Amino acid sequence: MVTSKKPMQYRPKKTVRKRSQKTGLPPGSLVHIGRQRAEETKITIIDYDETRFAEQAVNTVDACFPFRESPTVTWINIDGIQQTDMLEKLGSCYNLHPLVMEDVVNTEQRPKAENYGDYLYIVMKMLYAGESAETISTEQISLVLGRHYVISFQEGLEGDVFGHVRERLRSEKGKARRLGADYLVYSLIDAVVDNYFPILEALGEKIEVLEEKLVTSPTSETLHNIHCLRREMIFLRKTVWPLREVISNLQRGDSILVQDSTRIYLRDVYDHTIQVIDTIETYRDMVTGMLDIYLSSVSNRLNAVMKVLTIIATIFMPLTFLAGIYGMNFKYMPELEWRYGYGMIWGLMIGIGLAMIVYFRKKKWL
Amino acid sequence: MVTSKKPMQYRPKKTVRKRSQKTGLPPGSLVHIGRQRAEETKITIIDYDETRFAEQAVNTVDACFPFRESPTVTWINIDGIQQTDMLEKLGSCYNLHPLVMEDVVNTEQRPKAENYGDYLYIVMKMLYAGESAETISTEQISLVLGRHYVISFQEGLEGDVFGHVRERLRSEKGKARRLGADYLVYSLIDAVVDNYFPILEALGEKIEVLEEKLVTSPTSETLHNIHCLRREMIFLRKTVWPLREVISNLQRGDSILVQDSTRIYLRDVYDHTIQVIDTIETYRDMVTGMLDIYLSSVSNRLNAVMKVLTIIATIFMPLTFLAGIYGMNFKYMPELEWRYGYGMIWGLMIGIGLAMIVYFRKKKWL
Amino acid sequence: MVTSKKPMQYRPKKTVRKRSQKTGLPPGSLVHIGRQRAEETKITIIDYDETRFAEQAVNTVDACFPFRESPTVTWINIDGIQQTDMLEKLGSCYNLHPLVMEDVVNTEQRPKAENYGDYLYIVMKMLYAGESAETISTEQISLVLGRHYVISFQEGLEGDVFGHVRERLRSEKGKARRLGADYLVYSLIDAVVDNYFPILEALGEKIEVLEEKLVTSPTSETLHNIHCLRREMIFLRKTVWPLREVISNLQRGDSILVQDSTRIYLRDVYDHTIQVIDTIETYRDMVTGMLDIYLSSVSNRLNAVMKVLTIIATIFMPLTFLAGIYGMNFKYMPELEWRYGYGMIWGLMIGIGLAMIVYFRKKKWL
Amino acid sequence: MVTSKKPMQYRPKKTVRKRSQKTGLPPGSLVHIGRQRAEETKITIIDYDETRFAEQAVNTVDACFPFRESPTVTWINIDGIQQTDMLEKLGSCYNLHPLVMEDVVNTEQRPKAENYGDYLYIVMKMLYAGESAETISTEQISLVLGRHYVISFQEGLEGDVFGHVRERLRSEKGKARRLGADYLVYSLIDAVVDNYFPILEALGEKIEVLEEKLVTSPTSETLHNIHCLRREMIFLRKTVWPLREVISNLQRGDSILVQDSTRIYLRDVYDHTIQVIDTIETYRDMVTGMLDIYLSSVSNRLNAVMKVLTIIATIFMPLTFLAGIYGMNFKYMPELEWRYGYGMIWGLMIGIGLAMIVYFRKKKWL
Amino acid sequence: MVTSKKPMQYRPKKTVRKRSQKTGLPPGSLVHIGRQRAEETKITIIDYDETRFAEQAVNTVDACFPFRESPTVTWINIDGIQQTDMLEKLGSCYNLHPLVMEDVVNTEQRPKAENYGDYLYIVMKMLYAGESAETISTEQISLVLGRHYVISFQEGLEGDVFGHVRERLRSEKGKARRLGADYLVYSLIDAVVDNYFPILEALGEKIEVLEEKLVTSPTSETLHNIHCLRREMIFLRKTVWPLREVISNLQRGDSILVQDSTRIYLRDVYDHTIQVIDTIETYRDMVTGMLDIYLSSVSNRLNAVMKVLTIIATIFMPLTFLAGIYGMNFKYMPELEWRYGYGMIWGLMIGIGLAMIVYFRKKKWL
Repeated sequence: MVTSKKPMQYRPKKTVRKRSQKTGLPPGSLVHIGRQRAEETKITIIDYDETRFAEQAVNTVDACFPFRESPTVTWINIDGIQQTDMLEKLGSCYNLHPLVMEDVVNTEQRPKAENYGDYLYIVMKMLYAGESAETISTEQISLVLGRHYVISFQEGLEGDVFGHVRERLRSEKGKARRLGADYLVYSLIDAVVDNYFPILEALGEKIEVLEEKLVTSPTSETLHNIHCLRREMIFLRKTVWPLREVISNLQRGDSILVQDSTRIYLRDVYDHTIQVIDTIETYRDMVTGMLDIYLSSVSNRLNAVMKVLTIIATIFMPLTFLAGIYGMNFKYMPELEWRYGYGMIWGLMIGIGLAMIVYFRKKKWL
Repeated sequence: MVTSKKPMQYRPKKTVRKRSQKTGLPPGSLVHIGRQRAEETKITIIDYDETRFAEQAVNTVDACFPFRESPTVTWINIDGIQQTDMLEKLGSCYNLHPLVMEDVVNTEQRPKAENYGDYLYIVMKMLYAGESAETISTEQISLVLGRHYVISFQEGLEGDVFGHVRERLRSEKGKARRLGADYLVYSLIDAVVDNYFPILEALGEKIEVLEEKLVTSPTSETLHNIHCLRREMIFLRKTVWPLREVISNLQRGDSILVQDSTRIYLRDVYDHTIQVIDTIETYRDMVTGMLDIYLSSVSNRLNAVMKVLTIIATIFMPLTFLAGIYGMNFKYMPELEWRYGYGMIWGLMIGIGLAMIVYFRKKKWL
Repeated sequence: MVTSKKPMQYRPKKTVRKRSQKTGLPPGSLVHIGRQRAEETKITIIDYDETRFAEQAVNTVDACFPFRESPTVTWINIDGIQQTDMLEKLGSCYNLHPLVMEDVVNTEQRPKAENYGDYLYIVMKMLYAGESAETISTEQISLVLGRHYVISFQEGLEGDVFGHVRERLRSEKGKARRLGADYLVYSLIDAVVDNYFPILEALGEKIEVLEEKLVTSPTSETLHNIHCLRREMIFLRKTVWPLREVISNLQRGDSILVQDSTRIYLRDVYDHTIQVIDTIETYRDMVTGMLDIYLSSVSNRLNAVMKVLTIIATIFMPLTFLAGIYGMNFKYMPELEWRYGYGMIWGLMIGIGLAMIVYFRKKKWL
Repeated sequence: MVTSKKPMQYRPKKTVRKRSQKTGLPPGSLVHIGRQRAEETKITIIDYDETRFAEQAVNTVDACFPFRESPTVTWINIDGIQQTDMLEKLGSCYNLHPLVMEDVVNTEQRPKAENYGDYLYIVMKMLYAGESAETISTEQISLVLGRHYVISFQEGLEGDVFGHVRERLRSEKGKARRLGADYLVYSLIDAVVDNYFPILEALGEKIEVLEEKLVTSPTSETLHNIHCLRREMIFLRKTVWPLREVISNLQRGDSILVQDSTRIYLRDVYDHTIQVIDTIETYRDMVTGMLDIYLSSVSNRLNAVMKVLTIIATIFMPLTFLAGIYGMNFKYMPELEWRYGYGMIWGLMIGIGLAMIVYFRKKKWL
Repeated sequence: MVTSKKPMQYRPKKTVRKRSQKTGLPPGSLVHIGRQRAEETKITIIDYDETRFAEQAVNTVDACFPFRESPTVTWINIDGIQQTDMLEKLGSCYNLHPLVMEDVVNTEQRPKAENYGDYLYIVMKMLYAGESAETISTEQISLVLGRHYVISFQEGLEGDVFGHVRERLRSEKGKARRLGADYLVYSLIDAVVDNYFPILEALGEKIEVLEEKLVTSPTSETLHNIHCLRREMIFLRKTVWPLREVISNLQRGDSILVQDSTRIYLRDVYDHTIQVIDTIETYRDMVTGMLDIYLSSVSNRLNAVMKVLTIIATIFMPLTFLAGIYGMNFKYMPELEWRYGYGMIWGLMIGIGLAMIVYFRKKKWL
């Protein structure tokens, strides 16, 4: 169900750089931890206010520097985080703390929001479902919110989740362009959380299918599937739970970077997060219930098997015994000489057999 | 037991618009999420103070606008939330935040209460039991409490839960007309919570019936029923738990829209909610206990079956062996020649059989 | 074990008026919810200060009115709450909020303490054990504490729990008469909590007896008893847990009606409540442990049964096979002609049998 | 494992006075609840400051009165709490609240610390292990800390736990004599908590032994032992958990009776308590794990037994059938006449037997 | 899996001094509790500021005293804590509270951080995995942070965890030398926490291997391994959980010894700790899931075994019965005389056998 059996990072083995390789390095060392990707880092700069809108794709990080002081809202989107030297340059230009840059490239962060005074640093996890929801993989999204700028970092492994936001900015409709950088950050967070719902719906359908199977024909594969589902639940839970606090902190926090009008929108995303968590918890309860059902259906089948065995044995053992009796070679066995002895013994045997069947009927075993 | 197996929205498949269809839309987009209904939106306006009372059913939302500034209490009840354009118009007339209107038409909200300064926005869930409590379905009730007005939105799928409140307003009795809009909101909340009790009582009776069955004749259908019951419990819990906090917030909150005299009444509804939650928790405990009972009764039956098998085998195997012995064709078997050999072997066999029975009696297997 | 299987109100079916019958009534409607009782409401008035003591049983509620303003402590005890008109009169005379009166007659309240400024309203549950602790039933006790008066409401179903308190007031000993109405309320609460201990001790003895049985001769009735015990535990827990908060609120609350000297006494009752809760939790743990023991003892017995079957089959199947061999009718079977063939075959069989027994000994099955 | 099966007071039946015997008595009534002891109450008075040290054993409580106002630290140790009249006298001399004295003689208190302004009242539980840790019994220790005095009450059932403290006071070494009454109370608490460690280590060894047994030869006695262990854990937990809060309250509380220098020492005892609780929780987890192991080892053995049965039956049933075939008496059975028929049938049978064994080998049943 | 079965201290038996040996000693007594080590205590002093760096290994503790008042940062690292007299001397020179020194030598501390005003005392646990992660052992690390000095105590049992930190100080690179003693303490804590990750990754691989085994060939050894894993989890959890609070206290605490710039780094370590705890919790969930899988696979195998038995018995019992019938010696058995009787009986038997097989096919047992 999951791409790999690695419990910790949930990704294929070879191309993943592990956390332990950083042991002993000084804090603030930029070492990329996570899945490796061949392609280059892509940088897109969008600069806008209510009237203007400029979008450009650049190759070097230097192109970002002029926007530092501009009063318009600047959104720098970095797609791919393996070229740590470029990121380092960007970080020092925007005065980002070395620990922030370290967290950006280490993709094993929990979702969190940190207030560095001049800017807020937010980490989230994007979820991607493989074909037919068999695999869930994650991508780390880092956001930096400054007074007039937003920098977003994506691992760049899967599709672009921010397409809708970009679209809305391009078209002049909506209030997206009228509001500031904090509203843009809200839009990005909202885009990520919105993307959880299809994943959950796919999971819900998987559960439904499994339940159907569980009732009609439970096999040991069903058990395996339940187990995998439970695992994905553990994984999802670990990914989504901290988000709740993150958004709650943003909404209720005292950062001057977030305006009151945006807080109302953040409350809305917060509600969505709670809804996601609620659904995950409900699914967990259901999967637990499915395990119980599976176990008791196994017990029930054992019972059924044993009943068949017992019925057969209880009917044929006495009869075989009787046949054995009249197979004995004693010289003086009067019944053997009887004219209708053979017929009588058949009668007796059929009688015993029927009595047993009636007995089992009464006991509701048949 | 439940209408459909959809874990997430608990409704028949075809006519439900899913949450994922909203992915990518800007916040505040009014898209109806939930079960589809053919009929039109019905609007009822009730305007009253201690002396006057006027009630009218209108077709267009424009009829609501004149009441915006009137000092009398105005209750606008919207039945059906699929005509999003009408709702949008109403929302902008009463200055409701776009996110409020978005939540009104998205029927997958958790119960919540949000303070928007000028008005409070409250979401609740109404429960409906199908025939013989086999199915529990929900309907989202949204309430907006302003200084002099209350707007209530119902999905309009099932009967009208606010009939009693309307009745009380019509008759001049009671203090209902003397008190303000906040008391009206309390009455509506109370009507919803009051409606949970019959549902719970029906569930209680179902549990009782199942327990009876569990003791007398547990089948694998019983297990299925327990499982369904547990599921409904999970569903109920998810629906009612957040209500506790909602009402607590209303009661203890600092909104100037809720007067102190009304807070005492809200404390009363809060108590009812706790009572509902208590009952659900007790039911959950009972259902868990029933599962344990079921599983151990299955084990017990297996034990009983195995005992029968063992008794039969233990009695007849030695006897059949003995019969086999004297069925052997050795030339020199002295016993076969004995005059009373046959009688003696019968005696021995009956003796062994009785000894076994005595043994099993002593072991309390018989 | 419990009088009825109704999970919600734990009382015989016919004479109970259910909560759902109140749906749709305006708040403050006095409708008696609970077990019906034929007898009349009894009213006792005790008026005292350090020097005086007057006790009278009255028929009408009007006799209570003169005491409203008296500076002496007045204790009005109402026994029976079905005559709602009388209670309504009393309530309006003492200026009690309609919701208080509603809660007094609705016997499905959770224990709670509510501060209405001029007076405190306290709800508790009295427990009564049937003969040999087979049944636990509850009675709702409501207390109203004013400046100089205490009104106590009992359902009047079982004996009078306040006898000891009355006795102490009558005799001039102790400080009971010297202290005010708050000390009287403390005494009444203490009387209720004190009464929980015999119930718990009876339950403890029942658990002890069941454990004894569980070790010596577990039957499926034992399982049923464990289940009933667990149920009573759930019931008790639900009844006693909220009491903890109630008394804590009284003790730490800021009501001017409770003096500091009384708070020390309330802390003592609080300790008792914690002790009761502790004991219930311990019992719950023990009952859970008993269930585990029962289940594994069932497994053990199955194991024992299967061993008997296996031993018998393993010994007699090879022997019966051997006997079958020499029961074959082949023309040329040299062994059959041997002089000591029969003896040798017996020897072989006994040898095989003994070998099997030695094997099972070694495997510790015998 | 435990002296008696009484769940509530964990003591032999006859000599224990139960809590229920106090029902109906006014608060502050001194009735001894707990195990009865024949011997008399022993009183020891130690009076010291940095330079002086006086120790005396007295018979009457009157000897304690002169020390009430002395500026030196006075430690009155009462050993035996059944002579309630003496205690009452002492209590009224030192102005102790009647409820304090009631709690001293009622040995069913939870550990607690109560601030009465002039003095602190602390209840703790001393643990004693019987021989080979089979039995754990408790003794209630009550401490009263005043400005210049400490009164300690022991039930006097087992040895004296305060011996080491007394020794340290006698010798002039250490700061024990330099510091005040609060340091003495700390020393007494520390002595009690220190005494928990040997008990825990003994329990740890018991668990170790049981685990060993569980792996090598699990019997149903093992199950009983696990159950007893779990029970002791429940009991220990109930005894030690509240202590955590007690010491935390003393340490962080605002009583002027405890000096800052002593608070550091109390933090140390607090750490020890947490360590004790941690160990108990770890043990609980381990015992739970042992139960799981036991249950699955029972299942495994059942599996093993069933395999033996199945192997035997699967080998011998077809063979016996074959033997039966050639035991039939049909007139025309060509095989019977064959010269090597008997040899061939043996060959066939051995072939079938070997085939079965190979099959079971492949299935890893053998 | 774990070095020893001691639940409490998780170390080989003989060389461990137990906590109970301290019972009765006055507080502040330096008694070494833990594993014994033959070697001597090693002391290393590193003294540095931005420009200077001096490192020396000394034999006596006196060499540390001159650094007490120096304005440069001094790091005294003590490797080996069994020579309590030396530690006592050091403690009194640096004015450390006797309880601190007691905790340093008692290696059964929980992780904790204590503020003594002039200095902070921090206890942590270092983890070491044996070969192939079979064994996890701990070493207690104590840190004392003063204004200009850091003292670190290691048990000195395993390798040196602080090598990387020392290296960074030696090289002039990085800000390590520019910042104060608090940054040094952060570096040491970070080194310890960083070291948890390889341990966790090794555990993760162990879980992966076990899961593989569980699916392909579960034996009772698998169960044992799961049990050991669970135990290690309990142990790890107990070790790491308190660390969370420790670091949180350091970060949010109000000690003037920790500067704001360092707090940001502590927040980073805090995140790592949370990540470690998250991973442990996930592992725990997985191990619990594995136990469920194991148990149900045992049930499944039992089912399979029983099916084989039942199939064999159900086919051969009727056939053996039939053979027994025609082995009877009745005089008048017409079938025996039939010319094709023998062939017909074979036909009948094969028919019955095939019918059974078809039946089992339909039931999906074959």
